[in-house]
Amino acid sequence: MSCKVYKGNIIFTPTLHAFEVMENGYVAVDENGIIEGVYHDIPKEITEWEVVDFGNKLLIPGMYDLHVHAPQYRNQGMAMDMELLPWLEKYTFPEEAKYKDTEYARVMYNHFVKDMLSEGTLRASVFATIHPEATKLLAHIFHEAGMGAMIGLVGMDRNCPDIIRNTAQDVVADTRSIADEVRDMPLVSAIVTPRFVPSCTPQMLEALGRLTEELQLPVQSHLSENKSEIAWVKELEPESSCYADAYYRYGLLGQTPTLMAHCVYSDDKEMEMLKSGNVFVVHCPTSNCNVASGIAPIRKYLDAGIPVALGSDISGGHHLSIFRMMQYAQQMSKLKYAETDGKMAFLSLSEVFFLATKSGGSFFGKAGSFEKGYDFDALVIDDAPLNEANTEAGAEPYTLEQRLERFVYLGDNRLIEHRFVKGRHL
Amino acid sequence: MSCKVYKGNIIFTPTLHAFEVMENGYVAVDENGIIEGVYHDIPKEITEWEVVDFGNKLLIPGMYDLHVHAPQYRNQGMAMDMELLPWLEKYTFPEEAKYKDTEYARVMYNHFVKDMLSEGTLRASVFATIHPEATKLLAHIFHEAGMGAMIGLVGMDRNCPDIIRNTAQDVVADTRSIADEVRDMPLVSAIVTPRFVPSCTPQMLEALGRLTEELQLPVQSHLSENKSEIAWVKELEPESSCYADAYYRYGLLGQTPTLMAHCVYSDDKEMEMLKSGNVFVVHCPTSNCNVASGIAPIRKYLDAGIPVALGSDISGGHHLSIFRMMQYAQQMSKLKYAETDGKMAFLSLSEVFFLATKSGGSFFGKAGSFEKGYDFDALVIDDAPLNEANTEAGAEPYTLEQRLERFVYLGDNRLIEHRFVKGRHL
Repeated sequence: MSCKVYKGNIIFTPTLHAFEVMENGYVAVDENGIIEGVYHDIPKEITEWEVVDFGNKLLIPGMYDLHVHAPQYRNQGMAMDMELLPWLEKYTFPEEAKYKDTEYARVMYNHFVKDMLSEGTLRASVFATIHPEATKLLAHIFHEAGMGAMIGLVGMDRNCPDIIRNTAQDVVADTRSIADEVRDMPLVSAIVTPRFVPSCTPQMLEALGRLTEELQLPVQSHLSENKSEIAWVKELEPESSCYADAYYRYGLLGQTPTLMAHCVYSDDKEMEMLKSGNVFVVHCPTSNCNVASGIAPIRKYLDAGIPVALGSDISGGHHLSIFRMMQYAQQMSKLKYAETDGKMAFLSLSEVFFLATKSGGSFFGKAGSFEKGYDFDALVIDDAPLNEANTEAGAEPYTLEQRLERFVYLGDNRLIEHRFVKGRHL
Repeated sequence: MSCKVYKGNIIFTPTLHAFEVMENGYVAVDENGIIEGVYHDIPKEITEWEVVDFGNKLLIPGMYDLHVHAPQYRNQGMAMDMELLPWLEKYTFPEEAKYKDTEYARVMYNHFVKDMLSEGTLRASVFATIHPEATKLLAHIFHEAGMGAMIGLVGMDRNCPDIIRNTAQDVVADTRSIADEVRDMPLVSAIVTPRFVPSCTPQMLEALGRLTEELQLPVQSHLSENKSEIAWVKELEPESSCYADAYYRYGLLGQTPTLMAHCVYSDDKEMEMLKSGNVFVVHCPTSNCNVASGIAPIRKYLDAGIPVALGSDISGGHHLSIFRMMQYAQQMSKLKYAETDGKMAFLSLSEVFFLATKSGGSFFGKAGSFEKGYDFDALVIDDAPLNEANTEAGAEPYTLEQRLERFVYLGDNRLIEHRFVKGRHL
């Protein structure tokens, strides 16, 4: 790659609390795809760099999906007529079982990754299945697309049908094998992935905890999504002080970078564990609606300093767009606000944008912001169709923040014109 | 028009509780655009009618939007950072004031109606502004588009800026004038539209009640959307036993066909009034999220036999698609289900589809179903792009109900191929 300067209407969130907005600004990107700086005027030192002008379009960081089940792609947007536990039994496990067939996986995973990129998601942390071949294939598909991914071969050895059950030995060997496979894929890595406590025996959790420590791998799983699930964990792991503790005791919560999806019902004790382990709460608002889990108290987590990112959670969630997740995250927080008579403040647009970009991106390194030293992960949004009426009527032009908000709420993948991952144009 | 038979995969809801699904079925439509019947095989009597074959596409009734503010079109998808009452003051009233300028209205209303049709909404009950010229223009635009509409010139004479205040005399004269204007538009009519109790003096409500009785016009307004609003109404109308009663006492609730938007916080007393007046609750789930109102207990209204329809409520709501409203209506009902530990059953897909089609359509006459005698209001959905991966992978084909569900949750206006209103192809 050569050094480039990208010109456009720049919006990003260095912090939760406010947008950094620059009309007709410049983002300079070096030959390694790393951001040199953001400028109102091109500095003297780099006047020779090629300028790519995106005109009046919006130039924003990419989206990061921190919780998604690739093998549930076929069920996306349907089969949401029950709560989590029966839903897993009836719809999810049978679909995942099909990924024993690597050819089936090839077709579905290719479509899945293509759709994800189309929605502006540039990197994702992904649950695959128990099948090592299909899981390696998924890693290759992300790599070839030029996208970033953490790939998790799923461990599950209890309370599930035999066809998607593996063993502690399997999941350890297969996770090692995935880690080997992705060694030469700079943006792809392996992540330790116990499905969730009800699916994993203490033996499996222990084995995965040891592997995590040995290879210093990150971990992802599910936590406190649903009341029946929490009650079940209490029965299964009576020695744990809370659901989170059932991971922590085995070295799977905060000992290395950790993602815990949902956290709809985490209590103060659990919040303390999340905080002290710097564990990411991955908020999946559409999923929490669709499988009738409830509303996660994201404001509480942010106030407590717990990191939060967003996840599509296909196919509990129905849509891959992280812009859509921003929208739902705000909306759910407003329902919490109403429920608490205004005591729990709702999330602002800059806050949900931060979760979708800089916060989620931080799990992959320096990604999700336009600050110096960050990977240039970016989207170019051509929102002209959303402004037509306003322009024609001669009304006051929308501000850049308003344009972004309208894109988040009204736009879709038709308006995403370019995608860059670490400086590379995909 | 000539008699036609439309062939496709037919789905509609004669009742709340189940879809009527017919693969490769036929809908026969007479020269007046009225449905003759739905058949597995074309009956002998009509074998000479022209057949239009939509192949493997979905053929469903049109969508009806029973609560939408046309002059809030510019604000769609933005400015949702406060609750109802301050939101009205800061964003909504200033925008509505612009419709004094009929040229501004012409541009905005044309875009608004075009967008609405693009989303598959065929008829709507619309709030305009206090401005008679712009409101007549809106009626003409709907008429020329071939769509159905109830057009409401808004009455408001207190607690609002002078620039959008009219008087009891104005609103009565202007509503009469709209009713005259639309006399020769077969699918467009006038609807009495007091903004809501806080905006209307008893004098205005009384005058509108008399007009309603005299012209036997339908009525639309807002009811019990937000706790501060309800408290305010209690202060303003201390003699009313509840918010609904403040309309009822003036002849504006159930004396003629009535739409009441929101009903997030209607209590048992209010529910009784809605029921005995056969008043439609217009559920606007996106709006209820965006302006932090709360979740309307739709299951309770359905159980009580109160009619319910759906509304986009632009720009409290951010999106014009009634398919999107179906999705949110299900999701909000699932959050209620979670909140009540499963005591309040969530809405099924057929239920929300019924609300969007046959229930909403019934306000316009016989519309929204494919039963004999109904207007042929229909959409043809080409959902092939949503099935690609599945077909390529050789997986079990999606059922028609699954295809519909996936369209509702994943589709958008790209996939709506044809729109018919009362037999006319728009």
